[in-house]
Formats: sequence, structure tokens, C-alpha cells
Amino acid sequence: MNPKAFFKMSYGMYVVCSKDGDKVNGQIANTVTQVASEPALIAVAINKKNLTHEYIDKSKVLTVSILAQDTPLSFIGNFGFKSGRDIDKFKGIDYTTQETGVPIVTDNALAYMEAKVIGQTDAVTHTVFVCQVISAEVVKEGEPMTYAYYHEVKRGSTPKSAPSYVEIKKEEKPVMSKYECTVCGYIYDPELGDPEGKIPPGTPFEKIPDNWVCPVCGAAKSDFKKV
Amino acid sequence: MNPKAFFKMSYGMYVVCSKDGDKVNGQIANTVTQVASEPALIAVAINKKNLTHEYIDKSKVLTVSILAQDTPLSFIGNFGFKSGRDIDKFKGIDYTTQETGVPIVTDNALAYMEAKVIGQTDAVTHTVFVCQVISAEVVKEGEPMTYAYYHEVKRGSTPKSAPSYVEIKKEEKPVMSKYECTVCGYIYDPELGDPEGKIPPGTPFEKIPDNWVCPVCGAAKSDFKKV
Repeated sequence: MNPKAFFKMSYGMYVVCSKDGDKVNGQIANTVTQVASEPALIAVAINKKNLTHEYIDKSKVLTVSILAQDTPLSFIGNFGFKSGRDIDKFKGIDYTTQETGVPIVTDNALAYMEAKVIGQTDAVTHTVFVCQVISAEVVKEGEPMTYAYYHEVKRGSTPKSAPSYVEIKKEEKPVMSKYECTVCGYIYDPELGDPEGKIPPGTPFEKIPDNWVCPVCGAAKSDFKKV
Repeated sequence: MNPKAFFKMSYGMYVVCSKDGDKVNGQIANTVTQVASEPALIAVAINKKNLTHEYIDKSKVLTVSILAQDTPLSFIGNFGFKSGRDIDKFKGIDYTTQETGVPIVTDNALAYMEAKVIGQTDAVTHTVFVCQVISAEVVKEGEPMTYAYYHEVKRGSTPKSAPSYVEIKKEEKPVMSKYECTVCGYIYDPELGDPEGKIPPGTPFEKIPDNWVCPVCGAAKSDFKKV
């Protein structure tokens, strides 16, 4: 089996939120699809280890926000690489609530939908939830972020709990010293710098200020190691 | 509910094939996602009315071919807008078979996977099949076709059995006379012509030769009506 075959599949990037009583949580997911139009149904695959999975499994309600192409890495890092068990992911984030009371993230969202689980099936490490959409709205016009764009253009990384996480052995040694975030796997490439973090292209890792943090997960500079 | 919210979701374009004894069939699908990596699992949503659904439901085996961006509309029309009940969709198509005997379409494919159904869940008009991948290979390098690319760049149309089919009322009258295929919904736009069918941009519909056929579904010119 060639794991690279899976890299040709296309996905969007979404924030999926749910709740358990008064507790709320959300996470990044790329595996959201519309599976029927009358009635409007979506399928959402979530890792069983994630807190959001626990909440969806209990409350049977969730929301999906479709992320815009210009969503900052730091936003994805907050929802994708941190756990709601440790932090409040909604601090400083714009969201609203409607019928189910589950947060609907509107920050960096092109559109959102609120849905109720009508069926679910086991997928070993994950569960696929089939949900009936009860409301859906456009937030703003713009291009959606695709998973390919996230990886190729924004150099994002994939958390180990994601469906598409695969460890690929590096075949070539980089010519320049790149550094990898040991928390989330983000690679700092000195040729590209980190424009969002105000680090211009051509800046060696060693010259980055010590208070700089990983643009994806917010880890400290000292959490990076040379690759 | 605003149906335009769903248009912001991102998908690839795939041919999904299955078999029933010696009979084989395949269809276009956009709702294929990887839902787990260890073991490698995919989810595939298929309309219950489709022959491919009947075959998957019986045999519990299927293959997925990931289509390249430069896949011709006529190829998509063959697999997406015709029924295997009426024609042999594999005539003139390159494919191979492996363990399960289900055709693996390699024409216009970047990669493929062969899989066995391990679970399924009802989605009213559709079924979501969760499948364990038993083999996966890359066919060639290239960009995958996304559903957005298919719609925006190639002006593809959506069959009524697709999850994402929605009738949207036209808000503006076109300035020039466009014609719509009554079989598949493809719109002939005289400003763009039909380069694949050797109709140059700027050709009015009336001046197209009578033996010209719909580039998506192969319907006759007489099956078009003015919009």
C-alpha cells in the first residue's frame, strides 16, 4: 500500500463544535462532506480520542464552520493542536449560538451549519457521524481553505489524531537548517520565514527572537529541534 | 436554510466501482474521504437509486479512482450521467483488476484504492459505506480534480442523484443566449464555446453543427433548450 495515494484526495478545512451540558469544545476537521440534499445531511468523521468526539457522542448535536483560505495558522493551531481539556478554545474567538446552543464559530468562516446526529458508524479509531442539517448560513464570500492549500501554501502540519496523519520518512536531507516544532510538527523553513509572525524570508532559525512562537500551535521557540 | 452555504465545502472527484458476480459498474462520486489512517479507512456516500449502490450493498467491495484535473468532461459524463443499466461504462476505458475483481479505473486517475466495506450507515436517500483499504497505489503525478474546479472551470453539471444537487433559481437573465442540456443540466455558453468538442469561443448555439453532442452526457444538440 502506497500512503501517497491518499494525498491525492481533496478536502476542505472545518471547525466542528459540540457541547456536553454547559461545557463546549471545538476542533479542526477535514473530513466533513455533504451526503444528501433532500433532506440535507452531512457526514463528519471524528477521532474517538478527541474531547469533541465525547461531546458529540453524548449530545448528538454539532456545528460546522467552513474556513476561509486566509484563515491564520494560529487559529488552526488553537482549534487543531490544543485540547479543550487544557484550555478554553473559545477565548477571543467570535462565535454565536442558535437552536442547539453549540458554539457556531464565525471567525474566519465562510459559512456554517448546525446539525443533529441521526446515525453513526464505527470506523475503528474514528466514528463517522451522519447528521441532519437544521440550519445553514453564508457568513461572507471568499474562497474556502482546502487541505491541499493548508499543506502546500501555508505549510501546515497534521496532528497525529487526524485521519490523514501518516509518518513519511524524509528521503532527502534539506540543504538549509530547517527546524521542526516538537509539539505539532510544523516545519520552520528559513527560506520562507514566517510572514504571519513577522519573520521575513531568509531569516535563519537562530536569529528569530526568543519570544517567537510556533505559528500553528503556539509552542515556544525552545520546543523546536533541527531536522 | 441557505443552500449556498453548502457550496463552500470542498471535495475531490472520484470514480467508484463495484461488482455483483460477473456484472460490474462504476459512477462518479465527490463524497469520498479518508476517515482513519491506522487502519486506513475511507467513507464513501452513494445514492440508493444508483446501480453501483446495489452492487456495493451486495458484494461489500469497491474501488476508488482519484481523478486528475485534466479529466475530460466526456469521461465524467460517461460515468456520471449514464446508467450501467443502459450501457457498458467500461467500453474504451483503461482499467485493471486486483484482489476483489472490481474494476480499478486507471484512465485519468492519479491514484486508486481497493477496499472492503466494514460498516455502513443509513443517510435517507444515500448510504455511507465505511471501508478498509486493502491496496492503494499512485498512477501518475498531477493535480487532483476538485469539485469546485469541475464546476467553475469546466462548467460541469450535477446529476440530480448527487448529494450536492440543489435547484437554484436563476437570479439574473443571461445577456447572451445560453442553452441548457435537458438531460444533464450542462449549460452551453456561446462566449466560452466547447473547446473539447472543437466549438470555438464566440460560436452561437444555432451555428453549432447538428452532430455535436453534450460534452458532459452525450445528449444530442436537439436535447438542448434556451435558458
